Amino acid sequence: MSHPLSTQMIFERGERLFGDSRIITFDGTKTAATTYRQVADRARRLANALSALGLRPGEVLGTYSWNTQAHLEAYLAVPAMGCVLHTLNVRLSASHLEFVIGHADDRILLVDASLVEALQSVLPALPGVEHIIVNGASPDTISGFSGSVHNYEALIAGHKPVGTFPQLRETDAAAVCYTSGTTGLPKGVVYSHRSVYLHSLASMAADCFAISNRDRILMVPPMFHANAWGMPFSGWLAGSDMILPGRFLQPDNLAGIIAAERPTLMAAVPTILNDLLQVHARSPIDLSSFRTIVSGGSAVSPTLIERVKIAWGVDVVQGWGMTETSPMCVLSFPPRGAQGEDSLQWRAKSGRPVPGMHVRIVDDADRPLPEDGETTGHLQLKGPWVSGGYFRETPDVSPLTADGWLRTGDVGRIDRLGFVQVTDRAKDLIKSGGEWISSVELENGIAALNGVIEAAVIPIPDPRWEERPLAMVVLDHTTRPEPAVLRAQLLGKFARYMIPEYWAVVENLPRTSVGKIDKKQLRQKFDGGDLNVLIESGFSPGDRT
Amino acid sequence: MSHPLSTQMIFERGERLFGDSRIITFDGTKTAATTYRQVADRARRLANALSALGLRPGEVLGTYSWNTQAHLEAYLAVPAMGCVLHTLNVRLSASHLEFVIGHADDRILLVDASLVEALQSVLPALPGVEHIIVNGASPDTISGFSGSVHNYEALIAGHKPVGTFPQLRETDAAAVCYTSGTTGLPKGVVYSHRSVYLHSLASMAADCFAISNRDRILMVPPMFHANAWGMPFSGWLAGSDMILPGRFLQPDNLAGIIAAERPTLMAAVPTILNDLLQVHARSPIDLSSFRTIVSGGSAVSPTLIERVKIAWGVDVVQGWGMTETSPMCVLSFPPRGAQGEDSLQWRAKSGRPVPGMHVRIVDDADRPLPEDGETTGHLQLKGPWVSGGYFRETPDVSPLTADGWLRTGDVGRIDRLGFVQVTDRAKDLIKSGGEWISSVELENGIAALNGVIEAAVIPIPDPRWEERPLAMVVLDHTTRPEPAVLRAQLLGKFARYMIPEYWAVVENLPRTSVGKIDKKQLRQKFDGGDLNVLIESGFSPGDRT
Repeated sequence: MSHPLSTQMIFERGERLFGDSRIITFDGTKTAATTYRQVADRARRLANALSALGLRPGEVLGTYSWNTQAHLEAYLAVPAMGCVLHTLNVRLSASHLEFVIGHADDRILLVDASLVEALQSVLPALPGVEHIIVNGASPDTISGFSGSVHNYEALIAGHKPVGTFPQLRETDAAAVCYTSGTTGLPKGVVYSHRSVYLHSLASMAADCFAISNRDRILMVPPMFHANAWGMPFSGWLAGSDMILPGRFLQPDNLAGIIAAERPTLMAAVPTILNDLLQVHARSPIDLSSFRTIVSGGSAVSPTLIERVKIAWGVDVVQGWGMTETSPMCVLSFPPRGAQGEDSLQWRAKSGRPVPGMHVRIVDDADRPLPEDGETTGHLQLKGPWVSGGYFRETPDVSPLTADGWLRTGDVGRIDRLGFVQVTDRAKDLIKSGGEWISSVELENGIAALNGVIEAAVIPIPDPRWEERPLAMVVLDHTTRPEPAVLRAQLLGKFARYMIPEYWAVVENLPRTSVGKIDKKQLRQKFDGGDLNVLIESGFSPGDRT
Repeated sequence: MSHPLSTQMIFERGERLFGDSRIITFDGTKTAATTYRQVADRARRLANALSALGLRPGEVLGTYSWNTQAHLEAYLAVPAMGCVLHTLNVRLSASHLEFVIGHADDRILLVDASLVEALQSVLPALPGVEHIIVNGASPDTISGFSGSVHNYEALIAGHKPVGTFPQLRETDAAAVCYTSGTTGLPKGVVYSHRSVYLHSLASMAADCFAISNRDRILMVPPMFHANAWGMPFSGWLAGSDMILPGRFLQPDNLAGIIAAERPTLMAAVPTILNDLLQVHARSPIDLSSFRTIVSGGSAVSPTLIERVKIAWGVDVVQGWGMTETSPMCVLSFPPRGAQGEDSLQWRAKSGRPVPGMHVRIVDDADRPLPEDGETTGHLQLKGPWVSGGYFRETPDVSPLTADGWLRTGDVGRIDRLGFVQVTDRAKDLIKSGGEWISSVELENGIAALNGVIEAAVIPIPDPRWEERPLAMVVLDHTTRPEPAVLRAQLLGKFARYMIPEYWAVVENLPRTSVGKIDKKQLRQKFDGGDLNVLIESGFSPGDRT
């Protein structure tokens, strides 16, 4: 008797066993709680309401929402009823937004009231959209939109909870998330029911996120990107309390929520942790309720890990993954017995594959390279929740090698114990005088210097060396060290040819829609002459180290 | 791109990431350690050796072994090479042993040297067996056996490690375990690659066994029964150290191993824990290295849980499952926030379904009953690793209902939070004057009385009440309370009609081949007049409570 893996198992487990667990929402001022029992009942009403609006199994519903309870209810209802949850990135440009809604063929959109205005401009170009469900204060009509506008609360109040969900195949699509499209048009990564279930179960493993019934998860990663690291699903499967900050992700708001709700777990990009550290430096905040903070999305510097440990005694576990891996792939849990300095050494690596995942490095011809901790190559992935194709694309648009490995576009090393160290996006490597320089390693080295809050490094053209690194730094306002001083401190830590002579002091670093440092924008700023670049001479890249 | 779930993922993960983890073997005197790296290399040699002996994908290899390193190597090699691991229960009667080897068509047997003699008598009736591989001091020939005898060490030393394992389907059989056959002939429960993988991954979940790289697992449940609760697979997947006690499961041996190796986790039937408590009472031993002890296989009394907590400060987590469920099904983790007395109350229940498993209670016509904590019914299971058929049986020999639920033969209740309380095997219920009496609840109540070490209750015929409970007790030799005293202590804890008037004081309780109290044998003893039964009058079952 086959028993298909599905998100229905997730929905029904949380509903049946953990009815008293809590879903907590922050409204910008205070938190309010409801129970799994209530949320499950509302999700079942939503399913019936969506059926009444004409949503059929296999069809797509688009969400355009922050981390809200209604969004969570859509996570539960839409896949369980056999439909596909399409989470729209609220930071997409209008042209990408229009493309993605049209490509996915979203006939129904669930939209936060605060985001209706942002959506409005693209609606005239999207005649396929028939219904817009507004979560919050809903207008009667939306200018330029000829379909029906519904109020979320009124809609679900008008329907009974659905009794039984349809039988699904585990390979059916449960959700789709378009990649942020740093090159070309966005592509839709498809998550099957099987892959969501396996990712969620692996997230509960003791050496992974170890998500349990005892956890209180602060849902910081946006639910419109890679399913918020899968935590709405894995948290519900485990019966964790979940705290939803809505659109209030500013560090002061997060600090307030943490003080009020004492969460035990969150995932966050390094920027969020840097922001919280800056709040803490101004006026101490308490993050000691966290048993673990998982960080990733861009490289997590050892300095950041150390600063969090010093500030609050909390271990940061670094992760590396992709939209195509749901996103969990490797996590930097120290090996058995590692402690203290040794532990930091491991935590500073990108991590080891979580159960089910395989990682390898290959040369330009996809031939495996030695995993000796020294050889650098293209990182490729394989595993039961690696997405192998894109939504509504022909199979020739596959990111996989002939033997089934996913090309990540990242470059790195793998050591004897299987620890992966991502050194760069292939396109972020700097080729200087025939030698490769890793921008990530430089960024980590510079961020560790006294007086530096954050650093980013991009390649810029150089008449002599072809390319050279440009270091952009955000400095502590009290000390403000000179670039010459910073540069001198890098001596002995890096080969001389790696140490940047081009520096720019900036007030902040621009972010992408998912909170990573936006290197494309930095390159554009540099190209447009918008950066005040200093050239430190002192010593030359060509000097012997 | 489909990525089949398989034991190969388990093998390769442990080998690749946890090469330094340890496999520790007890030889009756001392422990000795080797590494995952070594064991994986030996397993790869074994795979090549078995191929050379003619074992082809899909064929079966029988093991007749205690918990040894060679047995673990067979666990790793046999399924990974696409063959089926058939673990023979070393306590089977000769007739069942002969039946099972013949039914499974074992052409190759891997046998502990200490068990060759026990096997010898059945070999003449099994002409299909061609090769016997002896682990330990091997004879040149085995009397009555005309096939080849091999020494395990010599055999694997003569072969290179296999490089690549064949591609498998996840529905392929990985292992088979014949149920101990309390009624009728043994039947082979099949574990597919998919089910072994999913059971192993779920075993790593924080709210399940939480098996991790930091664990040191003392492998107490026999590897010939339900894959030792799956721990050879889940432990290897997690990279835990594993301590193999061989055939030395006597309490003094276990106490010595625990002192030497400081394990963090074990699963054990209640008998083993009772035995260790008795050793402790004579001369204190230290079990504080355990973070958790999982117990099951037969009902775990609250008294036992409490005694272990008092003796060593260790929490016992109760489990309930079957050979057909690999065996993990429900585990008694307290709900969020439960502490102290409240915590014991939850731990004394059979438990809540682990992720993936579903449990229901039904009436005699398979109709679902209310899950209100009070209604009693037949327990039925469903989940991705529930075995739905038996090895080499036609599908009509299915233990499943028409809608796919496994009939367990157990009876119990389910409460609002999904906690299952198994009250009895259907055939162990006692029908007294039209009322049901649970033998398990009585056993727990009697075992909790001062001076009682263990208790078993069976139904016996009674001229007035049709059936009455007979209580058999093992008493503490220092206090030896009279049955009348024990009986009086049950007043107020049980309805009067439930309290046994038939008592027998025994020196010990007989066990089945998997360590459960052998009620069949107790019934036979009673029927044969081999028990000295006292009748306590004092009050009558018919008195009002």
